[in-house]
Amino acid sequence: MSEYILNLLPLHEGEREKFEAIAPDAVHVYARRSTVTAEQLAAATIIFGWPREESMKEAVSLKWFQSMWAGTEEYNGCLPQGVIFTSSSGSNSRSVAEHMLTGLMAVCRRLPTYLDSQRAHVWKDEGPMKTILGGTVLVIGAGHVGADFARLCQGLGARTIGLKRRIAGPIGGFDEVRTMDELDRLLPQADVVALTLPHSPQTVGLMNESRIALMKDGAVLISAGRGSVLDQDALVRAMQAGKLWGAALDVTDPEPLPPDSPLWDVPNLLLTPHVAGGMRLEITRRKCVEMAQENLRRYLAGEQLENLVK
Amino acid sequence: MSEYILNLLPLHEGEREKFEAIAPDAVHVYARRSTVTAEQLAAATIIFGWPREESMKEAVSLKWFQSMWAGTEEYNGCLPQGVIFTSSSGSNSRSVAEHMLTGLMAVCRRLPTYLDSQRAHVWKDEGPMKTILGGTVLVIGAGHVGADFARLCQGLGARTIGLKRRIAGPIGGFDEVRTMDELDRLLPQADVVALTLPHSPQTVGLMNESRIALMKDGAVLISAGRGSVLDQDALVRAMQAGKLWGAALDVTDPEPLPPDSPLWDVPNLLLTPHVAGGMRLEITRRKCVEMAQENLRRYLAGEQLENLVK
Repeated sequence: MSEYILNLLPLHEGEREKFEAIAPDAVHVYARRSTVTAEQLAAATIIFGWPREESMKEAVSLKWFQSMWAGTEEYNGCLPQGVIFTSSSGSNSRSVAEHMLTGLMAVCRRLPTYLDSQRAHVWKDEGPMKTILGGTVLVIGAGHVGADFARLCQGLGARTIGLKRRIAGPIGGFDEVRTMDELDRLLPQADVVALTLPHSPQTVGLMNESRIALMKDGAVLISAGRGSVLDQDALVRAMQAGKLWGAALDVTDPEPLPPDSPLWDVPNLLLTPHVAGGMRLEITRRKCVEMAQENLRRYLAGEQLENLVK
Repeated sequence: MSEYILNLLPLHEGEREKFEAIAPDAVHVYARRSTVTAEQLAAATIIFGWPREESMKEAVSLKWFQSMWAGTEEYNGCLPQGVIFTSSSGSNSRSVAEHMLTGLMAVCRRLPTYLDSQRAHVWKDEGPMKTILGGTVLVIGAGHVGADFARLCQGLGARTIGLKRRIAGPIGGFDEVRTMDELDRLLPQADVVALTLPHSPQTVGLMNESRIALMKDGAVLISAGRGSVLDQDALVRAMQAGKLWGAALDVTDPEPLPPDSPLWDVPNLLLTPHVAGGMRLEITRRKCVEMAQENLRRYLAGEQLENLVK
């Protein structure tokens, strides 16, 4: 029986043809999250993209679903038993890593304060700045994003240490990889601490008051991944006490951040609304499409799929 | 006759000793710009640092002056005939290059707009972003700063082209080096155009309305060096017309920028008050001190000095 591929990816010219060349015997149907029909969902044996969570129960013929995101929480509870679930983990890691680096450099050079002056039409020198050249960057969570971020930091002359639960071998971008139980020993050595952890029972509140206190005076904290990893109130207190040089957060808990959160107004704390990843760069979209094409080839050839979630 | 070295550099521990070891027969006097006396100025045969321009006429014994800055305009008119003048050109190039890269990445990821939202306590997605990965960066002025900036851009995956008046050979950081007369041919190819030119009769207004029009739609303009190189009014018009993605300027004409300039409020235009260089990073200070020590060694050995201005 031939496959019915419901393709909800944002495709550019020539990309449909590539899918059809990989699976010439399949039915290829292209739609968008907002236009997909109940009939298409019911017929689909394979779905690529970002269908609404609640629509997945209509996908009664589904055998394999590949999400176009790196995160997997959204679909974890809603996929029928026996459906293969793959993610696009790694597709946006370069984008997230660049965003983290941008935030890091922005607070090193006090851009939040300079932008306040700019809006006030004031020409005012804010004095000393910071560089990561010669510094140590500790990345908590040495996955795709963490490794890409570390590689960018190495390019700027920093030494990088990655922390993982289990170490399988060296990871590109890191001068050293250590296990998570060395966290408290390594925190005081780092000029930059970067969080790139997912939300899980093990990671919630991991960066708490006492761990922030272990950080070097004048260090910088960067947070991507999931906001629940960081104790935001403790960060606000540490920043107000002058403990840290600055911080750049792309994730918060909850999201959206409530308007009355004290985080918004902490000096030299940059806050962006979870926009590091997603489809904001063309390279992310393209990589996501290429990952779907490669996994389709593997699926039809009976090979092991990449980014298998379950 | 032994030298009298008036050292106005901001020295750290152990650095005086190094000067004294290089010139054991000299008189070493340490002071600051604000505390230096008329007697010290009159006796000095060598001055390192940043004396007040008007005090230089009191330096009647002066044979050699090394400024602690890269720029030389300040002292060009006030040094007595016959005094050797050297600069600290290159000492702050890494700092300026990092600032340029920070500004570039900040506008690529729309940080000025995100910071406006942050100040308003608003969680709002601004959509597509830009990366220099795979892009072309054209650096107008392939000196120390331009080459350091290009090297950082290469590290982020960009192709770099440098423009110089005269080419002596390849320059680290640049994939290509071309002469300035190719400017108009190269402007339409660049995703990023960076200005790192000094003020001179040849550079004033070089980046004018027609050259901005030659830039690729959606490109980014970065300006360091001197503000007079850029036609600011033309930039404002091009930005308002949606021609460019963004711009980051650390220099303006005049400085300080008047409060009523339209530049302050252009969306996705980042303005910093000429703070890319100076002594804002410790690496700049240290390099400046090392340059003075190396030139002192050369001076006493009768060798050619580095960074000779006249």
